[in-house]
Amino acid sequence: MSISRRAFLSHVGQAGGYGAAFAAVHALGLMSVPPAAAQDLAFAPAPPGTRVVILGGGIAGLVSAYELGKAGYRCTLLEARDRPGGRNWTLRGGDTVKFTDGSQQKCGFSKGQYFNAGPARLPSIHRNILRYCRDLKIPLEVEINTSRSSLYQNADAFGGRPIEQREVMNDTRGQVSELLGKCLQQGALDQQFDKDDHARMIEFLKAYGDLDGDLKYKGSERAGLKKFPGAGDEVAELREPLALRDLLSAQFWRRMQFEEMLDMQATMMQPVGGMDRIPYELAKHLGAVVRFSSPIKEIRRTARGARVVYTSGGRDRELEADYCVCALPLAILRSIPNDFAPQIQRAITETEYASFYKIAWESPRFWETDANLYGGLSFLWNHPVGLVWYPSAGIASERGVIVAGYGDEREPPFAALPDLAAKLDASRAAIGKLHPGHEHKLEKPVFVCWGRIPYNEGSWVGGSIPAARDGYYQAQYREIIKPDWPFVFAGDHTSHLIGWQEGAVLSAHRATRLIAEAASARRAPRP
Amino acid sequence: MSISRRAFLSHVGQAGGYGAAFAAVHALGLMSVPPAAAQDLAFAPAPPGTRVVILGGGIAGLVSAYELGKAGYRCTLLEARDRPGGRNWTLRGGDTVKFTDGSQQKCGFSKGQYFNAGPARLPSIHRNILRYCRDLKIPLEVEINTSRSSLYQNADAFGGRPIEQREVMNDTRGQVSELLGKCLQQGALDQQFDKDDHARMIEFLKAYGDLDGDLKYKGSERAGLKKFPGAGDEVAELREPLALRDLLSAQFWRRMQFEEMLDMQATMMQPVGGMDRIPYELAKHLGAVVRFSSPIKEIRRTARGARVVYTSGGRDRELEADYCVCALPLAILRSIPNDFAPQIQRAITETEYASFYKIAWESPRFWETDANLYGGLSFLWNHPVGLVWYPSAGIASERGVIVAGYGDEREPPFAALPDLAAKLDASRAAIGKLHPGHEHKLEKPVFVCWGRIPYNEGSWVGGSIPAARDGYYQAQYREIIKPDWPFVFAGDHTSHLIGWQEGAVLSAHRATRLIAEAASARRAPRP
Repeated sequence: MSISRRAFLSHVGQAGGYGAAFAAVHALGLMSVPPAAAQDLAFAPAPPGTRVVILGGGIAGLVSAYELGKAGYRCTLLEARDRPGGRNWTLRGGDTVKFTDGSQQKCGFSKGQYFNAGPARLPSIHRNILRYCRDLKIPLEVEINTSRSSLYQNADAFGGRPIEQREVMNDTRGQVSELLGKCLQQGALDQQFDKDDHARMIEFLKAYGDLDGDLKYKGSERAGLKKFPGAGDEVAELREPLALRDLLSAQFWRRMQFEEMLDMQATMMQPVGGMDRIPYELAKHLGAVVRFSSPIKEIRRTARGARVVYTSGGRDRELEADYCVCALPLAILRSIPNDFAPQIQRAITETEYASFYKIAWESPRFWETDANLYGGLSFLWNHPVGLVWYPSAGIASERGVIVAGYGDEREPPFAALPDLAAKLDASRAAIGKLHPGHEHKLEKPVFVCWGRIPYNEGSWVGGSIPAARDGYYQAQYREIIKPDWPFVFAGDHTSHLIGWQEGAVLSAHRATRLIAEAASARRAPRP
Repeated sequence: MSISRRAFLSHVGQAGGYGAAFAAVHALGLMSVPPAAAQDLAFAPAPPGTRVVILGGGIAGLVSAYELGKAGYRCTLLEARDRPGGRNWTLRGGDTVKFTDGSQQKCGFSKGQYFNAGPARLPSIHRNILRYCRDLKIPLEVEINTSRSSLYQNADAFGGRPIEQREVMNDTRGQVSELLGKCLQQGALDQQFDKDDHARMIEFLKAYGDLDGDLKYKGSERAGLKKFPGAGDEVAELREPLALRDLLSAQFWRRMQFEEMLDMQATMMQPVGGMDRIPYELAKHLGAVVRFSSPIKEIRRTARGARVVYTSGGRDRELEADYCVCALPLAILRSIPNDFAPQIQRAITETEYASFYKIAWESPRFWETDANLYGGLSFLWNHPVGLVWYPSAGIASERGVIVAGYGDEREPPFAALPDLAAKLDASRAAIGKLHPGHEHKLEKPVFVCWGRIPYNEGSWVGGSIPAARDGYYQAQYREIIKPDWPFVFAGDHTSHLIGWQEGAVLSAHRATRLIAEAASARRAPRP
């Protein structure tokens, strides 16, 4: 950048603040990344000596410390556990799962096997968490979120036979296209379409549904084959299409659009070796800023800022700071004595948390060798465990970790399972329904249920029922996102991306911006 | 296995041959892999001293030598080039591309960058080529064949603006669902549906198309957002849906079902580091069986079997064998003097080959950093280069190899481009249309066109026009798949999977089986 440009930007910054300077940088074309691709991280530099204490070493806390540190703030991050990441937790052989009731499980996985008990997906549109992966040089690989070889199984449909996703998807589309073609031919849409449109629609429907010349769907190679083509005289044989009526009554359509949910669309990614590469690399970058094994006991307001009491090495300690980023789950924050404003305290207390669980097993990869199924998710109906998630790591190797069960443990029918043994039985039975005869190969189970994990006591805000989350956004959220100086709240629950690391990152950027603006304002000479 | 079972199987084998023994093994449940998941490879063992010469070290030749060798045949494989793989060719920095006209290109890629100039995909249903990857311990990773962030661009539609695939897919489905919903409400399908079906269809269409309560499609988060959700008060904003009429006239639907073609469906894979890991590992396993730099000069029939003349070290050499597997492209085979039966010679001469090309460039990954686009394919209309394929290797790293152009060089409008420079310009321009302002970042181009590669002179049998391939199957194929003892033909062109490695593998299994059966019959004492 030339001196004159620097001087110009400096002027703009002094006159109009950092927002204006940032806009000018854009206008001059000095930034290679357009705003659409990454978030503005040009924060005002810290007034010298300004201190920030950050509570919680999940993604929100770590990124807050990272960005505040870059802007020149003197940060300390207090984390209750002896590891960073919060819900970003990767389990490996030798790790222990402890529940709030004191019960424990030891993870017995073989060397190299792992299980992302919390977040396990990085959507390609989550540009901000991905930027940290890039900056911290964390190798990524594809997380296979959909596979046409995955299975849909309903005990009450198709005789309980598991149906390949390719069959569900393409037989449905074929028959929808046929029905619409029939309506077009009957003139049902003549008011809407002129002759050209009509002809184009017919041509489109043939391609869309793989219809024949008479606009009939008579099965398609897209839906898989009864017999694969081979060499010599081995020709392929089509499957008989599944009747639309049967597909609909099987309720398969409830899961068909899973892959089209914006945050679930291909391409999805994961860090090679485990999701916890992200918090560990962030923590490594932060070094002594992070104090592990330091649970918070009190959060107090002082004349100058905040005072936090925490435990470390068996002793109570205190820390004072100008600002405090509270990046703890609200389920934890509400039981820590604090000086928050009454409306904030009420919002924290009233916020409900879901309690999602995952069950993971180590196994030889029968789903690959016997079902040509590499990654992706299978779904079950009328069974307490409704989802099986095949590993994307180490495809085509010997063994892998398969997730058989992912949902809210408080929701029926899973909620009715009396104990861990019953839950594991249901999980194994789900595999038996999808891959009969292979369920006995599952071993070394691990059950992680976030509502029962100390320092979390919940998976995320709201139930899995959308209404519960809507209620949160209409009520408690409006309080939680307001700074209660010197306190600012961060975490995915202060974003519109609840349950996603991207939300935690964006909340951390917002907390950093709010503090930077407040600190600049405090420093500014009064007019 | 118990002694009695062994004894039983041995009896079955003696009495009924290997087929019967194999069936018995299945009946006893002794094989963990059902026939659906992998092909029967229980070939009769070779009569002692039986020799086979294999012509061509592509996948078909290598696998023939591998399986015949396992069955005890004394094999020699003759390969014209100094590398194995044939069309399975991975280019790296320092490699040279030589065309039949004598022109050359030097590949200038940086260390670690590569380009699969031939096959670049392993579909998960291609069980037999995947089995070799597994057996040879070749690490696999996902080949991203579809990404909802990829782009559709037509100079004559939407003002030439590239449209995200997620928008095309979901706005189309939404409006198709709305139209069908309208027809249902108008009673157009009352003859077909009873009241229950009707209600179920309505419920299904709402979910399928993301329709509102009135069965209207008013846009969907699935189609992407005008504004991403953020922290605090940053709420998401939906895009205006694209009109179905505009989507149809843009012809986007011609490519929408690409991802649903059976051999293109997720999950797709690729060997880590390059597709040529497969032939190199096969050749390593075969060791001295493979003679490189040994082009064939004559293929002759003798009283006992076959005699092959080839060149090596500047001298003509001869090899005699009981059987000969001809795994050369027919485009090459027809110019080698041979003793094949006249109808075979005619079939070989008459078979037409397509000439597919790929153009690859090295570049910083602007498609990832600026368009959230990780792998997958973008499509263009009304442009000589209609396809851009983003790399699946090394996602989120600094640089990558992008393929901008993949098609038959003899098809218009690409065929009209006069020279290499014009082809490269068209390729760069395609990137400019999809990613304006980034096209100047492309460097180190490589153009591989299989019709002009020595020892191939074609990409695969038939044009890209399905009719050309159908013609081949109805005529020449019927001759080529017949053994012309001592000659058996192999290669993807002797299978129903033309252009796929799986076809080459299956043809090799078939060639091995035919030889094993013939050799067993020849050995059998006359009754």
